[in-house]
Amino acid sequence: MALPTSVRRRVSAIPSAARGGLALGPLLSVTGILLLMLAAAMLVPMLADLAVGHPDWQVFAASAAATAFFGTALVLANRGSGLEALTTRQIFVLTTLVWTAVSLFSAVPLALSGLGLSLADAVFEAVSGITTTGSTVMIGLDYAPPGVLLWRAILQWLGGIGIIVTGVAILPVLSVGGMQLFRSESSDRSEKVLPRSAQIASAIGGLYVTLTLACVLVYWQLGMDLFDAAIHAMTTVATGGFSSHDASIGYFQSPAIEWAAVVFMAAGGVPFVLYLQAVHGRPYALWTDIQVRWFFAILLGASLLLTIWLVRELDKPVFEALRSAAFTATSIMTGTGYASTDYGQWGTFPIILLFFLKCVGGCTGSTTGGIKIFRFVVLYKVARIQMNRLVQPNGVFIMTFNGRAIAEEAAISVMAFFFLFALTFTAVAGLLAALGLDYLTAMSASVTALANVGPGLGPIIGPAGHFGALPEAAKWVLSAAMLLGRLELFTVLVLFTPLFWRG
Amino acid sequence: MALPTSVRRRVSAIPSAARGGLALGPLLSVTGILLLMLAAAMLVPMLADLAVGHPDWQVFAASAAATAFFGTALVLANRGSGLEALTTRQIFVLTTLVWTAVSLFSAVPLALSGLGLSLADAVFEAVSGITTTGSTVMIGLDYAPPGVLLWRAILQWLGGIGIIVTGVAILPVLSVGGMQLFRSESSDRSEKVLPRSAQIASAIGGLYVTLTLACVLVYWQLGMDLFDAAIHAMTTVATGGFSSHDASIGYFQSPAIEWAAVVFMAAGGVPFVLYLQAVHGRPYALWTDIQVRWFFAILLGASLLLTIWLVRELDKPVFEALRSAAFTATSIMTGTGYASTDYGQWGTFPIILLFFLKCVGGCTGSTTGGIKIFRFVVLYKVARIQMNRLVQPNGVFIMTFNGRAIAEEAAISVMAFFFLFALTFTAVAGLLAALGLDYLTAMSASVTALANVGPGLGPIIGPAGHFGALPEAAKWVLSAAMLLGRLELFTVLVLFTPLFWRG
Repeated sequence: MALPTSVRRRVSAIPSAARGGLALGPLLSVTGILLLMLAAAMLVPMLADLAVGHPDWQVFAASAAATAFFGTALVLANRGSGLEALTTRQIFVLTTLVWTAVSLFSAVPLALSGLGLSLADAVFEAVSGITTTGSTVMIGLDYAPPGVLLWRAILQWLGGIGIIVTGVAILPVLSVGGMQLFRSESSDRSEKVLPRSAQIASAIGGLYVTLTLACVLVYWQLGMDLFDAAIHAMTTVATGGFSSHDASIGYFQSPAIEWAAVVFMAAGGVPFVLYLQAVHGRPYALWTDIQVRWFFAILLGASLLLTIWLVRELDKPVFEALRSAAFTATSIMTGTGYASTDYGQWGTFPIILLFFLKCVGGCTGSTTGGIKIFRFVVLYKVARIQMNRLVQPNGVFIMTFNGRAIAEEAAISVMAFFFLFALTFTAVAGLLAALGLDYLTAMSASVTALANVGPGLGPIIGPAGHFGALPEAAKWVLSAAMLLGRLELFTVLVLFTPLFWRG
Repeated sequence: MALPTSVRRRVSAIPSAARGGLALGPLLSVTGILLLMLAAAMLVPMLADLAVGHPDWQVFAASAAATAFFGTALVLANRGSGLEALTTRQIFVLTTLVWTAVSLFSAVPLALSGLGLSLADAVFEAVSGITTTGSTVMIGLDYAPPGVLLWRAILQWLGGIGIIVTGVAILPVLSVGGMQLFRSESSDRSEKVLPRSAQIASAIGGLYVTLTLACVLVYWQLGMDLFDAAIHAMTTVATGGFSSHDASIGYFQSPAIEWAAVVFMAAGGVPFVLYLQAVHGRPYALWTDIQVRWFFAILLGASLLLTIWLVRELDKPVFEALRSAAFTATSIMTGTGYASTDYGQWGTFPIILLFFLKCVGGCTGSTTGGIKIFRFVVLYKVARIQMNRLVQPNGVFIMTFNGRAIAEEAAISVMAFFFLFALTFTAVAGLLAALGLDYLTAMSASVTALANVGPGLGPIIGPAGHFGALPEAAKWVLSAAMLLGRLELFTVLVLFTPLFWRG
């Protein structure tokens, strides 16, 4: 039976969002606000270049103006969109949209500066910054103008707080890859995502600034000049890894600075909400958390194994071996990617161990990358229960995570993440190999991008090399891979499923 | 309150099995029977060596006598043990026990023969045979006595039917790594495992012999002599890969033989119960099975990609490229491991693709190794449903496998298998690296052993090399890895959990 014409008209008058379409207004509005913040951040390197009289200040001024213009336009054009009531689908689109837009606008000053970067180079460097990966296409950092160096560090620093907020406020609501384990009772309503994000950003922001300032102070006291100290503090706490020297932290030749970096990188690998709890009178939260325990256990174990290897196989003095081992293990596992030495020369066993650490990553809710510790915890518990169930098929076994039971649904979700990680890793490595990269370069570039670590392996992109020599197409592939990895794969890939757009 | 003495006495009179201990009698008895069969098999190479007058016939005679003696002793010492009522725990022990014992006794003639193999060599070669892996420590195969060559082929042939029976009758009952998906209503009682195994062995045995004879005939018609045809037919159908020539199938320089091998290797990768169904009037079972469809889809896709690569990058003529590609992809994916050419020289992309195919493997219930197609099917379905659930958190999605719903429990079990595979792979590769092997050798040896494929990569263990040059310790590690892989990890590893022995 056909509907009367009047009813049909009324149906088509319902806004598209309610019929399964997607209202983009509020999403564009939020993107606009973040672009305005980004434009404000561009004023810092502008001032730095002005101070030393480098002409690049005009590049930053122009980029800030353009970014601010776009941001304002987006905000104004979408005034009055209800910000508080987002659907899950809108949040998926918003998350990918914001990270992509911010990455692209961050690339503008890099592309326009006098460094001679191609568009692919500039986007790669910006994405590597925002995602706190730390792979670089630039050499001659020691002679680069201060504005560009500062901008790279600021990108990582902003990306660091960005991923903390995304990990605490947004991904648990989206339930990607088992993140539903981190939902609190008060926070699992998708409508409240934006106010809650702002609230968390401001609560954690203060801590993040304090930790960064402490790191500046320590680096400065240990012999860096104030500019280097500021840059390295920002990229240490964000576990990003950009340096102002081609030789990375190795430039300073200072054991004390390396140990300080170990401490602050590790501090960046801990969930920041635990610091918040510690400050609010619950310091024990820091050492009862299962992610933190596993994180430090793995870090310690790996450092010791590496130390033994360095002493036995490469005849290094014990203390030097311990320092190199702890520094490298922490740098790789937290996804910072600083190098104090060319660990690509250490031999096979360290390479395999570091490859494994890269994949593991740090705690969720921190600035680190990788698959994340909590997924390994869940996987371990699943495997143990599987074993038990083989022996006692009718036994009742309950998995817990920080004292709460893990739903089977969440366990499956975690394991699906591993599968997707392996598949994406293979696909990216295969794509890079098809573009002509050699085995070691293709494999290590794929994992270092997806896990947001930084350096790869081998002579081209290893700790002593850089990504500038790769073909342009490989840089685009890796830029996409870094964003995919940062947003935990599912968040982006779900946008490519037909069901998503059918609503 | 203490029990009265009389009660306590009665409790301790209960046989240990009932109190959670493990009655070994029936397990040893079954092992004894299988050793008797193995001893009978040793008479074949004995006759071959007698026929050509090679003194090794005495080695086989002595080994057969020793094996038969042990077998008889085990059977006699455990007479009257109830064979029909095994518990799940007993079956776990039995499976590992039988495969280990048969491997070790198979090594005896190899160790005693005039080939100068060390104990580690002989055990490695025997395990590689029984598990249908096909890695070899021997060179100079072209001049080896017929008895030894025949024995290696027989080991793979027996191992092939052994793993089919294990996969169809035993692993589904044990539920290792999602194998519960292959339980039929009539078969999920653990007590009936042994009679059912015998029944399946005899039903499938006829088919297995027929397929092998067909393969002998084809190889013979295409130009092999009857001895080579018999040996290669046994190792083709068992997807084992041992050859009687150092150059493997490449020795024959015959495109027709290579294509024939492709057909029979692929035939060995299909679940043998489907052949049984086809013979009993349900041929459509062969092409409606989801494992078979995925198997051929992946095989075809990989062959085409390799062909394109060979034509474009290495300028091979199209038909030669297609043949090399199809042969290598089928040989690697089914875990046969024959080489028609040194594909280690093809470049990075083929290496990554072949590495992936190695991990995938063939269908469960066939003679192939690897993770197995059905686990990838389940994983794919889980990932797809995860994606859908992200979009519609309250939607109802049902996963099916060959038309039957997949329980969440089975899905978790499958995913735990992937985790364990990755972990075991990393552990074995790390161990090999610590023993001094280089990166490519350690990584590829680990995966080739666990997936029961055969050759590795690189100059030492690649398709043009062999495993003889590895350190003794590495051979022991790899022997263990091959058995672990063949028994789907869990079956062996569960024996090392405390709960297993607490009962």
